[in-house]
Amino acid sequence: MTTLRSPTETLARFAAGLRFGDLPAPVVRRAEDLLVDWFGSAIAGHGARPVETIAAFAREMGPATGPSEELVGRTRSSPYFAALVNAAASHVAEQDDVHNGSVFHPATVVFPVALALAQALGSSGERLLAAAAAGYEVGIRVGEFLGRSHYKVFHTTGTAGTLAAAATAGHLLGLDAARMQHAFGSAGTQAAGLWEFLRTAADSKQLHTAHAAAAGLMAATLARDGFTGAQQILEGPQGMAAAMSHDADPRRLVDGLGTRWALAETSFKFHASCRHTHPAADALLQVVRAHGLRAEDLEQVTTHVHQGAIDVLGPVVDPATVHQSKFSMGTVLALAARFGQAGLAEFEAHFSDAETQALRDRVRMELDAEVDAAYPKRWIGKVTVRTRDGRVLQGRVDEPKGDPGNTLSREEIGAKALRLAAFSGGASEAEMQAALERLWHVARVPAVGMLLGPGP
Amino acid sequence: MTTLRSPTETLARFAAGLRFGDLPAPVVRRAEDLLVDWFGSAIAGHGARPVETIAAFAREMGPATGPSEELVGRTRSSPYFAALVNAAASHVAEQDDVHNGSVFHPATVVFPVALALAQALGSSGERLLAAAAAGYEVGIRVGEFLGRSHYKVFHTTGTAGTLAAAATAGHLLGLDAARMQHAFGSAGTQAAGLWEFLRTAADSKQLHTAHAAAAGLMAATLARDGFTGAQQILEGPQGMAAAMSHDADPRRLVDGLGTRWALAETSFKFHASCRHTHPAADALLQVVRAHGLRAEDLEQVTTHVHQGAIDVLGPVVDPATVHQSKFSMGTVLALAARFGQAGLAEFEAHFSDAETQALRDRVRMELDAEVDAAYPKRWIGKVTVRTRDGRVLQGRVDEPKGDPGNTLSREEIGAKALRLAAFSGGASEAEMQAALERLWHVARVPAVGMLLGPGP
Repeated sequence: MTTLRSPTETLARFAAGLRFGDLPAPVVRRAEDLLVDWFGSAIAGHGARPVETIAAFAREMGPATGPSEELVGRTRSSPYFAALVNAAASHVAEQDDVHNGSVFHPATVVFPVALALAQALGSSGERLLAAAAAGYEVGIRVGEFLGRSHYKVFHTTGTAGTLAAAATAGHLLGLDAARMQHAFGSAGTQAAGLWEFLRTAADSKQLHTAHAAAAGLMAATLARDGFTGAQQILEGPQGMAAAMSHDADPRRLVDGLGTRWALAETSFKFHASCRHTHPAADALLQVVRAHGLRAEDLEQVTTHVHQGAIDVLGPVVDPATVHQSKFSMGTVLALAARFGQAGLAEFEAHFSDAETQALRDRVRMELDAEVDAAYPKRWIGKVTVRTRDGRVLQGRVDEPKGDPGNTLSREEIGAKALRLAAFSGGASEAEMQAALERLWHVARVPAVGMLLGPGP
Repeated sequence: MTTLRSPTETLARFAAGLRFGDLPAPVVRRAEDLLVDWFGSAIAGHGARPVETIAAFAREMGPATGPSEELVGRTRSSPYFAALVNAAASHVAEQDDVHNGSVFHPATVVFPVALALAQALGSSGERLLAAAAAGYEVGIRVGEFLGRSHYKVFHTTGTAGTLAAAATAGHLLGLDAARMQHAFGSAGTQAAGLWEFLRTAADSKQLHTAHAAAAGLMAATLARDGFTGAQQILEGPQGMAAAMSHDADPRRLVDGLGTRWALAETSFKFHASCRHTHPAADALLQVVRAHGLRAEDLEQVTTHVHQGAIDVLGPVVDPATVHQSKFSMGTVLALAARFGQAGLAEFEAHFSDAETQALRDRVRMELDAEVDAAYPKRWIGKVTVRTRDGRVLQGRVDEPKGDPGNTLSREEIGAKALRLAAFSGGASEAEMQAALERLWHVARVPAVGMLLGPGP
């Protein structure tokens, strides 16, 4: 006998029932990689004005101490505020991970919740990793379900992220399937985040991740105590898809649950910019390296992109801040051509200097049918370069650096985290080394404790 | 020379610049009426399970004390959590006010923020009333702007309510026009609330008002500290209307600012049910009274309604809880016919008894062209009653009881607040009398203090 379950119910049952032992070993290893990579991004938020403003709000409105670690201020608070601040922190450097098919950044909304609650509950590292996996699997599928029409207006990391956070929190709180479904209802009805802020480079991206983590944690905590939510918040006639998508496909919500590990499809970021710029940057680097070109040799660069890149990056024509310049295709390609990578240090020192601006204005985007059709499953990079001496050169990458088929090694991930901490000054190298040592072996830890403790 | 300002900017300038002295005397009086009416609804939330669950969350995650009064638990907290809990509390009895044209409940998201911040800042009663007026004028216009297509899927009190809360908080925090506009951006990008929960009578309505108040207060507090938001979150190409409406009209955002006082158009609730049921209930009461009918004389009642009533009430066919029955047209009309009103006490004792159910199932809704065309500006009530002895009788009201043209007196408002407190047990009659005395004359108070203090 088969019981007919709705996609939301099926997904909630999966999130509640997932156990560490269900995760294949390579998925566990990848989860550890993603955790370390996230930690570096969280520390990178130290000192960033929008993050520090949210941290100050948490100190003004929240308790003065608590069981959970707030990483940028090196203080402690309740799980709610620790998750709020750490989620704001880990997205600001634009170095956190991304899942291509869902155009969703899982780490920044999943791990702040996982760490805050694991610290509060004294959970094991295995529990933390299983809860994070639940968050990744749920959030990625919700992002895929909401589809491309959703992403045109909504910041999927804010919306799908609320569900991912609820799944993570609900898992650590030990919710059964019914309460997990209520948590999803309470999360989805708070899901929010609009792209409008990009037009003026406002601070909303940090607010979106903070909000998603906090609202998801709240939804799960309320469900633990019997608070009810909609039963079909995702696919119901007045649910998220009805409200926020024109091309939602409910089959994506349950695609390969328990056999397909979406977590392992997640990409690391190499360049410190919006992911939509990475395929073209890598394709340009290919041309530049193959032909030994210098930045001043480039007469014009045409990037052949998917519509989503044009939607997100198109409005950014004359970036006024470092953060906004990370959404400028021209700036990113100019830095890549000049320095071989567009990292935090390159942005900070050169995002608006004359040479970057000159090259930036010689870069344009063109919609490409092949790239657009492959997106978001594959992020193909294609560029056409016209050189000053009249050559026309093509560059192409099928998997940008950091994608699962072109992933970062553990050495590269650790080194990236150290670079991020050094850049922000959020933790010393010795502190980072000690924390990373714990995190690489978190699966063996009986109770997740503090990672940094009070600052120096 | 005229500067071209966007509607969002114009609205933000108005909210920041509004002064108590700008409010005509009748608007001030009406604001006091609405404050007292809200206070009764907030106390009515005492003991309600969803409210108490949110209050427990606030105690678990928030500070143990603070400058602001949490009214249902009779404790104190930071303004953030006091606003969160009081907003959850004041919507659960379905007795709080409503603005017809925007289908928006202003009090439940405006006054919790106004009270919490006024207490924290030591603001005068005049400041509190001016801030509340800013919240009403902004929230109502945003609700009107988002329009009917928005309300089909979104709970406008959750979405527009976030802007109303931000305007109220921003006003008390003394934001200038530019920072108010940033606060609007941060509020609108967190705006959320879906009707999907109604299908299973879940607890989300309390979460929506709690979320709106808290997110709006957070948006304004962040803006005070320099956090930026989208400049055109309302009408921009990736803003709220683009995301959540098909019939948004930006002219509604600035309609009569400073001359038309939308606050004074707000209606008080007489019946303790969803406002969509009130016109028909009053029309039925007219027939019943005019012809001396008893409930058992009614063979069939056809209500002639607007589409919004069908959208919201249609899914509720067999209400399982008191709260769900407030969204059942049949239940509300049955209680009105049996007892002359559908108040809290009638719902609690009779929402599902045999006589109510029998009459409930003889009530149906039919879309009416005249009623639908007038809505949401006017909420006309029309019923056709067929009696057991074969008569066909028509009832009609053009303004249901509590509307501005058929408003409640101060005696009726005060008595309603006392009834609500007696029903919930949230405050004694003496405590309520003392608090109401303060609130009726709040405009004279130099610093808004505690209203109830710790419980007995």
